[in-house]
Amino acid sequence: MKDLTRGKVFLIGAGPGDPDLLTLKALKAMQAADVVVYDRLVSPEITALVPAHVERIDVGKMPKRHKVPQEQINDILVKLAMQGQRVVRLKGGDPLIFGRGSEEAEELRLAGVAYEYVPGITSAQGAAASTGVPLTHRGLASGVRYVTGHRAKDATLDLDWASLACEDTTLVIYMGAMNIGDIAAELMRNGLPSALPVMAVASVTTPREKRLISTLATIADDVEGAALAAPVLFVVGHVVSLYEATALPAEVAAYA
Amino acid sequence: MKDLTRGKVFLIGAGPGDPDLLTLKALKAMQAADVVVYDRLVSPEITALVPAHVERIDVGKMPKRHKVPQEQINDILVKLAMQGQRVVRLKGGDPLIFGRGSEEAEELRLAGVAYEYVPGITSAQGAAASTGVPLTHRGLASGVRYVTGHRAKDATLDLDWASLACEDTTLVIYMGAMNIGDIAAELMRNGLPSALPVMAVASVTTPREKRLISTLATIADDVEGAALAAPVLFVVGHVVSLYEATALPAEVAAYA
Repeated sequence: MKDLTRGKVFLIGAGPGDPDLLTLKALKAMQAADVVVYDRLVSPEITALVPAHVERIDVGKMPKRHKVPQEQINDILVKLAMQGQRVVRLKGGDPLIFGRGSEEAEELRLAGVAYEYVPGITSAQGAAASTGVPLTHRGLASGVRYVTGHRAKDATLDLDWASLACEDTTLVIYMGAMNIGDIAAELMRNGLPSALPVMAVASVTTPREKRLISTLATIADDVEGAALAAPVLFVVGHVVSLYEATALPAEVAAYA
Repeated sequence: MKDLTRGKVFLIGAGPGDPDLLTLKALKAMQAADVVVYDRLVSPEITALVPAHVERIDVGKMPKRHKVPQEQINDILVKLAMQGQRVVRLKGGDPLIFGRGSEEAEELRLAGVAYEYVPGITSAQGAAASTGVPLTHRGLASGVRYVTGHRAKDATLDLDWASLACEDTTLVIYMGAMNIGDIAAELMRNGLPSALPVMAVASVTTPREKRLISTLATIADDVEGAALAAPVLFVVGHVVSLYEATALPAEVAAYA
């Protein structure tokens, strides 16, 4: 029987894919959970770490390949917590960077449910570490910026292109695979050089990781030809020149 | 006796301060290290996790309160690895976001020393999770940008103010405590509203964490009055309106 006073939701970032990039806090919360709610952006290597006795709810998969709508996910979280359960809501990357964690938190707050955020390594950081492409580097990028390249069906990409076309800042584009051609064209139209290097990384830090090095002028064609599996992250900027072709994820465990 | 073929440097992000925000990979590397090289941005709670038998080198502290110059840190890393040691170079936050990790890597590469990056939770993510202020949120911020507010002595702050004054993007300023007045003034001069909310967070995710909520117009005076201890992070943007005054770091362990 659950203790009603203990019901709580942990909105947790699972990181980019490699289970070794989970935080200690995330792993402890998963191990102490009554139920884990996760979606398609959480790697199978990470869901494998959920203890066998813990209930799992996959909101990324439903009959007929539909995913659970956000409103229904909110309802599930509230209901489970109201039953007194310790709920882990596991999200790819960081819950507060394109993770809708704060939208779920709003619903929890309205329902009077306690919650807590646990940050996670975001894909940009995972890609930087695995490819050797830093997000900032003296003389190449004085800062970094994350945007999303996703747009609702038939909507236009409503981004501030003039502000984005800043050669001194590394630009990281999440969920941009469908629109990378339009994005690259707008960036060039707003002044970024066509030869500016671009890196695409798919399935960051998993055994399925794939990288592609290109330029603003050629990235759209190159991505189309490479048939990268989602999710794909794009890194635009001079830092990509530091890419280490030989860098491969190594196992710290091998040194343990 | 060390095995010369195994000499390697792990350039590791220690996260913002809370040891529970270390990644599993970082902790494993610390536990398997022969020597750990760290500086002042790594919290004492984290250095306490270095096993007793592992040698520690604090490059943030030197006689007469000087810190070790970057060139000398590079030399120390190369020398230790050349001796066949497994070296953990521990940095606050993420080594590839304002961490100079890729500068140290360049020196290691030139010296023929093997190395590997391990990402860490950056302070912006730690502050978001602990204060409830998301870095992106539908309708409030479609993206996020990290810049540094540090400048060399007597130099001007060489930032692209027109590009930075983007109301739809959360702006996070690292190392900006000394210059926040100038930064806020430039952002307002370039079009950001003076009432735009700003949060300052000191010693993110440690027991010494302090927060201050202000606006672009008032942040400089408020920070001066509050005498926040370094390091201080600034978050500028509409997302700060979601700050949860009651949010306090809670211990997952309490639920374990």
